[in-house]
Amino acid sequence: MSACGIGTMRSSTSDLKLNWEAVSTEIASFCARVVESAGAEGAVVGLSGGVDSALTATLLAKGLGAKRVLAVIMPEEGVTPMKTSRDAVALAESLGLSVEWVEITPIVGEFERALPPADKVSRGNLRPRIRMTILYYFANSRNMLVAGTGDRSEIEIGYFTKYGDGAADFLPIADLFKTQVRELARHLGVPEEIASKPSSPRLWPGQTAEGELGLSYEQVDLVLHALLDLNMDPKDIPEATGVDETVVRRVIELRERNWHKRNPPPFPRVRHLR
Amino acid sequence: MSACGIGTMRSSTSDLKLNWEAVSTEIASFCARVVESAGAEGAVVGLSGGVDSALTATLLAKGLGAKRVLAVIMPEEGVTPMKTSRDAVALAESLGLSVEWVEITPIVGEFERALPPADKVSRGNLRPRIRMTILYYFANSRNMLVAGTGDRSEIEIGYFTKYGDGAADFLPIADLFKTQVRELARHLGVPEEIASKPSSPRLWPGQTAEGELGLSYEQVDLVLHALLDLNMDPKDIPEATGVDETVVRRVIELRERNWHKRNPPPFPRVRHLR
Repeated sequence: MSACGIGTMRSSTSDLKLNWEAVSTEIASFCARVVESAGAEGAVVGLSGGVDSALTATLLAKGLGAKRVLAVIMPEEGVTPMKTSRDAVALAESLGLSVEWVEITPIVGEFERALPPADKVSRGNLRPRIRMTILYYFANSRNMLVAGTGDRSEIEIGYFTKYGDGAADFLPIADLFKTQVRELARHLGVPEEIASKPSSPRLWPGQTAEGELGLSYEQVDLVLHALLDLNMDPKDIPEATGVDETVVRRVIELRERNWHKRNPPPFPRVRHLR
Repeated sequence: MSACGIGTMRSSTSDLKLNWEAVSTEIASFCARVVESAGAEGAVVGLSGGVDSALTATLLAKGLGAKRVLAVIMPEEGVTPMKTSRDAVALAESLGLSVEWVEITPIVGEFERALPPADKVSRGNLRPRIRMTILYYFANSRNMLVAGTGDRSEIEIGYFTKYGDGAADFLPIADLFKTQVRELARHLGVPEEIASKPSSPRLWPGQTAEGELGLSYEQVDLVLHALLDLNMDPKDIPEATGVDETVVRRVIELRERNWHKRNPPPFPRVRHLR
């Protein structure tokens, strides 16, 4: 009896289809409650031109009203494609958000002048931390909260910069996988070129998330859904999802390696040592 | 029976005296375990010349060996007193730590040029976030972990910059109240002028923690001990500690207001909305 039906358990793309109308209503009202209960004036969001921040901004506008959402666009010369920043501006305008434009190029340059040379990844990670610092500057000075733009796929595999793009006061779309983010964005009328744009953290020119990870989010999401929502044994996931075993292993390995990014910093208990 | 002895419950400074030898051994070995289990080469710590970072660096050196500890000194012209940075250098030398010196003045200047004017606190909070970004640059590029220097008093009342000095991979002294930090520092031979130096986050010239809070750490620690370790009812704390009722109320109010700094960012659950 207890094993009944296990042979037929499947994780497929159709499992990830939600009631988009209910989801957007719930997220919008959550945003309103969080801002209200903090006694804040509104929310600040970093708008990159990518789908995560576009959806987050759209839901914030729905929940708070566009005038209480400050979109900060922080391009870097040579790293952020012009087209991407133009998409961000167009979206902010179509939603009617307040907008601030801050070029981070000279700030990055000043860090690099002050610091010894290092590898591409360490230098790349300066960017999201600089952006976080700017978002909090606006949030602090205008009594607003910072809305993070991380989605469930990125958070669960730890594909974000600790204390960078991972750092926020609340996370409107943290319960949606990347493929769900794209679907909900389309449902809410985010332009298709943003909804389908390949994801990139913009740590260096030409970087794409799926290229760096060597994984597609369609696969990652099926594996995460099987692992986290269906509590499947990892060894059953390739058959249940149709995703290759090496991909399943890679997702699990990323989760383990980045466990520290999803948990508070540990400390030693010593209060009892009298 | 159940109320027996409540009338005689007290929270006094002597309750906060720990077995310093056992505490330092436990913290040092914790540091070694955390670094080892992350497969890291050592730990990076921001050394300010204050007691928290001096104690953290001393314990790291004890646990990892001085050569595996990188002390980063990040003064700001006009904000960090010269004497303070000299104390930091002298301590690092006496412990035999590796040292990096990074002036943050030009980086702060570049942020302020890029951003619209704001109030003192919002501008002040740029500093700890810049320092965090620098610590992670060194940690990432040398495969080290960032050791945070927050103590239990600061963490419990939320007297730190979110994603600034509060941001680290592990927190060696997070279970010690500020008054215990000073005692343990003395026990380990940290120079008295550091051990007894008034605490300051250095967000602006002349800032001191106790001046800004309007509270002394002796009082804060007694109240926190009564509240958190003895689970006392707030209304009994003034009598049990001898601390004024307005101070007790202020500590509790700070804890509530800064609750968000001690907890992960909230997000709305929507995965069930099918």
